[in-house]
Amino acid sequence: MAEVNRVWRLRKRPVGMIGDDVLSLEQEQIPEPSDGQFVFRMNYLSLDPTNRIWMSDMDQYMPPVAIGDAMRGIVCGTVVKSSNAGFVVGDIVSGLGTWAEYQVGTTATVGKMGPLGGVPVADAFGLFAAIGPTAYFGLIDIGAAKAGETVVVSAAAGAVGSVVGQIAKIKGCRAVGLAGSDAKCKWIVDELGFDAAINYKTENLAEALKRTCPLGIDIYFDNVGGDILDACLKQMNLKGRIPLCGLISQYNATGEVPGPKNYPMILMQRLKVEGFIILDYASRYPEAIDALAQWMQQGKLKFHVDMHEGMENAVSTLRKLYTGENQGKLMLHVA
Amino acid sequence: MAEVNRVWRLRKRPVGMIGDDVLSLEQEQIPEPSDGQFVFRMNYLSLDPTNRIWMSDMDQYMPPVAIGDAMRGIVCGTVVKSSNAGFVVGDIVSGLGTWAEYQVGTTATVGKMGPLGGVPVADAFGLFAAIGPTAYFGLIDIGAAKAGETVVVSAAAGAVGSVVGQIAKIKGCRAVGLAGSDAKCKWIVDELGFDAAINYKTENLAEALKRTCPLGIDIYFDNVGGDILDACLKQMNLKGRIPLCGLISQYNATGEVPGPKNYPMILMQRLKVEGFIILDYASRYPEAIDALAQWMQQGKLKFHVDMHEGMENAVSTLRKLYTGENQGKLMLHVA
Repeated sequence: MAEVNRVWRLRKRPVGMIGDDVLSLEQEQIPEPSDGQFVFRMNYLSLDPTNRIWMSDMDQYMPPVAIGDAMRGIVCGTVVKSSNAGFVVGDIVSGLGTWAEYQVGTTATVGKMGPLGGVPVADAFGLFAAIGPTAYFGLIDIGAAKAGETVVVSAAAGAVGSVVGQIAKIKGCRAVGLAGSDAKCKWIVDELGFDAAINYKTENLAEALKRTCPLGIDIYFDNVGGDILDACLKQMNLKGRIPLCGLISQYNATGEVPGPKNYPMILMQRLKVEGFIILDYASRYPEAIDALAQWMQQGKLKFHVDMHEGMENAVSTLRKLYTGENQGKLMLHVA
Repeated sequence: MAEVNRVWRLRKRPVGMIGDDVLSLEQEQIPEPSDGQFVFRMNYLSLDPTNRIWMSDMDQYMPPVAIGDAMRGIVCGTVVKSSNAGFVVGDIVSGLGTWAEYQVGTTATVGKMGPLGGVPVADAFGLFAAIGPTAYFGLIDIGAAKAGETVVVSAAAGAVGSVVGQIAKIKGCRAVGLAGSDAKCKWIVDELGFDAAINYKTENLAEALKRTCPLGIDIYFDNVGGDILDACLKQMNLKGRIPLCGLISQYNATGEVPGPKNYPMILMQRLKVEGFIILDYASRYPEAIDALAQWMQQGKLKFHVDMHEGMENAVSTLRKLYTGENQGKLMLHVA
């Protein structure tokens, strides 16, 4: 056990892309657990688009991280000291924590990871902690996907998007993914089984959507907002659904971002746009995890962790999400 | 029976406010009914925001009216000649027709008005043909209004809005209306029983919404879009609903209209925005009409027809919708 803890603390609100001065990596004391608490050492840090929201003071779904506070993150670790009868040293835990090598956990925000059934910890953490349930409930609950429908998903080579397309296929839908490189497009079709992919950086979006969605779009699973949302709005079928999972295209914006100019299509086509945050589904997690684990065992669902190394590289690795350099679930191996 | 028919025909697509050259009033022959058809003389012409959509070639929910065709409208009339065994001379009918004094009706688009129970024809037509069911299903079905919630409605002194606020009250909600003059604001509070009103032309919207909705907004029934939508988005409660009924603020726009800049609130607050068109509820009309008729008989629901006179004034009267000169249901008495 190291003698020193390393903690990323928020120093200022980011403007545009997250600069090197937004967080600082501090050397601090390893915390001690009070009664009912435990201390765990972080093994993996999940890097997610929502991290940029938490750093900012934009309107958001939780309080922003306060300046000076340890950065908030979805974490996976091993208990090293416990004052909680339910946790013993060696337990693998995951949940909402901070960007700290050692941190205090409570049952309010962190729980033991269930039996992994042979799945590596990083995969289980990456898929089950947030990504898989997000894709699952977004597509099935909010999107109400039905066999035969056409599902379009943006950021389709990203963590959530890559799972959305595969669940769409499992449910008998046509799956079309948008991604930012030919390599990613090839990956989601050849490896993940999407029916079609569109490179939104090089193709004419309207034409490509027409070509790949000859029957129109029934569900557009939105991870990005912006021009892609507008293009999809124009080709939605009557009574189409738009689960709104993320708006990564505008998290780094420095000025005011205009809304979707094709918003009137929501009226004309009687669409439903519904925002959701996976935290709201906490009580229904087992349903998603059971299904996801079963699909993985059956070989119907592939999950790729884009693993990087080293606590000191947390910020530079996170930036890859906004430049589109990641493929699959971006994660940091810490210890 | 007159010897000549007068028909408003669409001559060009409007640009901005509907100009005098967009439609022309033609003198034509009175049509004869073919087998299965009947001919009715228009008594009342409903003037609705959606008329401007039908005239344009914007993306819309029905085919636009073709250049040269008689203008489409929601009409009420009296059968004057019938080749349909189900209709006799003197029957009062209503439905989707044209801006013509005499026109052919079929059961596909026009039906007999039920027993009016003492309600004047104009009131029954105005409330039951489209307005009442729109308010009813928008608030109860799409909005899922529950007692104790706060409902904000825009264009609250308009036909749909004035009914929405009253149904909200009947359902035990707090009803707050936005309107464009102090007189309208006074009317919806003093006469219709809204809890509060905001003059959106003179008040600071954000402050006025905070003052009148101290517990936030659970349902924003949107008839207008634009700045009012943006202001409401900022004050929506978690899991709030936005039934999207109309976007009158932008129907006359000549350039591209930006979408709502506060669109990300849909994600952050897990809102549901759902567009609807009353035509989709045809099979459930009796449910709405039964409820509306009962509330009128009980004195819980007031309906005001803003009646104008003369076929030749159809266009100038319609314009009042877009300048906000109407109060209640705008209608033309034709014969």
